[in-house]
Amino acid sequence: MPVGNIAPPEVIHAIEGIRLGVTAAGVRYQNRDDVVLIEIVENATTAAVTTTNAFCAAPVRLLRAHIAETTPRYLIINTGNANAGTGEDGMARAQAVCEGVAAAMSVTPQAVLPYSTGVIGEPLNHEAIIAGLAAAQQNLDANNWPRAAKGICTTDTVPKLDSLKVSTDDGSSYHITGISKGAGMIRPNMATMLGFVATDANIAQPLLQQMLVQITNDSFNRITIDGDTSTNDCCTLIATGAASCSVIDSEEHPHYEAIYAGLKAVFIRLAQLIVRDGEGATKFITVNVTGGNDRQECCDVAYAVAHSPLVKTAFFASDPNWGRILAAVGYAGVKDLDTSRINVSLDEVVICERGGLAESYTETAGKEVMSRPEIRIHIDLARGDFADTVYTCDLSYDYVKINADYRS
Amino acid sequence: MPVGNIAPPEVIHAIEGIRLGVTAAGVRYQNRDDVVLIEIVENATTAAVTTTNAFCAAPVRLLRAHIAETTPRYLIINTGNANAGTGEDGMARAQAVCEGVAAAMSVTPQAVLPYSTGVIGEPLNHEAIIAGLAAAQQNLDANNWPRAAKGICTTDTVPKLDSLKVSTDDGSSYHITGISKGAGMIRPNMATMLGFVATDANIAQPLLQQMLVQITNDSFNRITIDGDTSTNDCCTLIATGAASCSVIDSEEHPHYEAIYAGLKAVFIRLAQLIVRDGEGATKFITVNVTGGNDRQECCDVAYAVAHSPLVKTAFFASDPNWGRILAAVGYAGVKDLDTSRINVSLDEVVICERGGLAESYTETAGKEVMSRPEIRIHIDLARGDFADTVYTCDLSYDYVKINADYRS
Repeated sequence: MPVGNIAPPEVIHAIEGIRLGVTAAGVRYQNRDDVVLIEIVENATTAAVTTTNAFCAAPVRLLRAHIAETTPRYLIINTGNANAGTGEDGMARAQAVCEGVAAAMSVTPQAVLPYSTGVIGEPLNHEAIIAGLAAAQQNLDANNWPRAAKGICTTDTVPKLDSLKVSTDDGSSYHITGISKGAGMIRPNMATMLGFVATDANIAQPLLQQMLVQITNDSFNRITIDGDTSTNDCCTLIATGAASCSVIDSEEHPHYEAIYAGLKAVFIRLAQLIVRDGEGATKFITVNVTGGNDRQECCDVAYAVAHSPLVKTAFFASDPNWGRILAAVGYAGVKDLDTSRINVSLDEVVICERGGLAESYTETAGKEVMSRPEIRIHIDLARGDFADTVYTCDLSYDYVKINADYRS
Repeated sequence: MPVGNIAPPEVIHAIEGIRLGVTAAGVRYQNRDDVVLIEIVENATTAAVTTTNAFCAAPVRLLRAHIAETTPRYLIINTGNANAGTGEDGMARAQAVCEGVAAAMSVTPQAVLPYSTGVIGEPLNHEAIIAGLAAAQQNLDANNWPRAAKGICTTDTVPKLDSLKVSTDDGSSYHITGISKGAGMIRPNMATMLGFVATDANIAQPLLQQMLVQITNDSFNRITIDGDTSTNDCCTLIATGAASCSVIDSEEHPHYEAIYAGLKAVFIRLAQLIVRDGEGATKFITVNVTGGNDRQECCDVAYAVAHSPLVKTAFFASDPNWGRILAAVGYAGVKDLDTSRINVSLDEVVICERGGLAESYTETAGKEVMSRPEIRIHIDLARGDFADTVYTCDLSYDYVKINADYRS
């Protein structure tokens, strides 16, 4: 059961220049959408960030090569099989998928970016994907975002999509729509789960790439479910330029801030949706660290807390065993940390003041706040001006159940 | 249920110069041994390593100050309360415990080392410990190791002790006996869970300290259950010198190698016992990484695999989802890792050759090996001559249950 509000917005804006086709190709399971084809209009710009995992999957390696060569025209995504840990045979199969799309759509294979997600280490059924292309091509539609969001899911229990309209001071407007997937093997690092976001703004490369990197670092790169960085993480941002405005090619452009803020809002929503749908999650936890000497140490502390199985099980149990939070702060590796300055709160309940139990703290207040479905842990290191925030969930029986049963 | 052979040896050697007293002082629970007093003969040498957690507990801070000042004569250990995250009030209570022992035993407070383990963040009931001292003093006995092993347990399901006799080529002999505790919040780092090992060898400080650091790095510092480094980890090694042999004051001493090997064997056994009794453990897993450019990268890879909740749940399920192992190797942070060289085996079953699925691999063989209670993962990075080994266990429903229920 996902935590909190996971409903998509009432209006899902089509993005002019983008069409999506979805089909049940039977890559692994039958009668379930598992292949999504995204068509990008000519002259759009596209940016991508990919996993830092050294064992990155074949499609990720191919995507990096293709996007370096030419402007992408099609994205082809399959679930059910990650095509990772598959060596050179996996590369050949990913290549065959791109060639299949290229032939069907009359573009070069380099104009096709491949994405795979699912089980690691098994041969990809590329024939099934290619055989499914005709059906996907047939239902290409600008309004297919909701079906595509569902089509890229694996262990996700809900599709993840967000959409908004950005209006600028001078009366222009842009649309942004995006989808994401992921529920386990989630600790993106300089990259993301699968995420696809498009806007009709006209944004030049490499500004689009710079924006994607910055925004990813505040969204997909700040979530963790189990600390496992996937072999297939990938986030793609497309600017079709269909909105009839001038090209945004620098941070000084009058529309830059508005479109940046809009994209960031959609990315954060899509990232948080992954945590809200985290495998077995019953709580949505925001770990906010302030007062650090730099952002990195705030991030280190936030991740230490967010990854601690002891902290996560205490949240699952609604047990205010806050000592586990202190212990995680203590082993986060921050140099010369003066623990006698540290303050910790859960929402409005102060639990730790200057390294010790807060005088105002009561077990009743602790229990009440721990029982909430959405909780903010605020850790103040009280030694500097930097801050960072990480989003995570608790660790429940169901996490173990889902991951012990996943392949059977 | 602990995994594999956890029985103590048939003979537990008394160590001349060491007596142990145990009592049920009611620190947290009633009618359960929870205070252990260890008496050390005059002129013994003692070495200690302590947690690297910045939020180290009050007794750890006091222990460091005391051992720097004078030769320890008494160790006082309580369970039920870690006296961690308790600020200056916690320091005062730890001090009061040492003063209580000092008064009862006619030594200085600095000659007393305090140890606490249990819940973090609650005030220590130091009066109960002090009130229990008389009973502990009364049953001080050289043969009390088994009862002491039980007396230091918290969520442990079995007491952990080991003992052996070392014979040297020239006909001398030494005895080594030790106890340890720990089952959760286990990822020792430059220190250990509670561990107490004594020998009747005559070993000079600082050689004893050097030996303790080296041996700890091959034993207690190479185990992980949940990746959580405790605030109270501490390992203490005592050499009473009661065996009538010359003082061992350098690595060149003819008995050095024999006593080093004996101590290392006891330490590794005590460390492995902690993993075998890991919270909810159903499998004992050895992660052996070879072919690294240095020991650190082997250790990083081993810990990435050992900490991965996805790997751990796959072992719990006996599911040969070996892609999760590859994924963890891939995000371990090893620079310029060439994944196309990597080989991975589970016991004698080769699963991955040169980065891809091994030709000889069958799902049947994978399932069979994953169902064993003790499994060795061998990861060959094939790029250098270094190796390292980490011991861990799987992640089961019971881990979540134990840690969601621990305080209630």
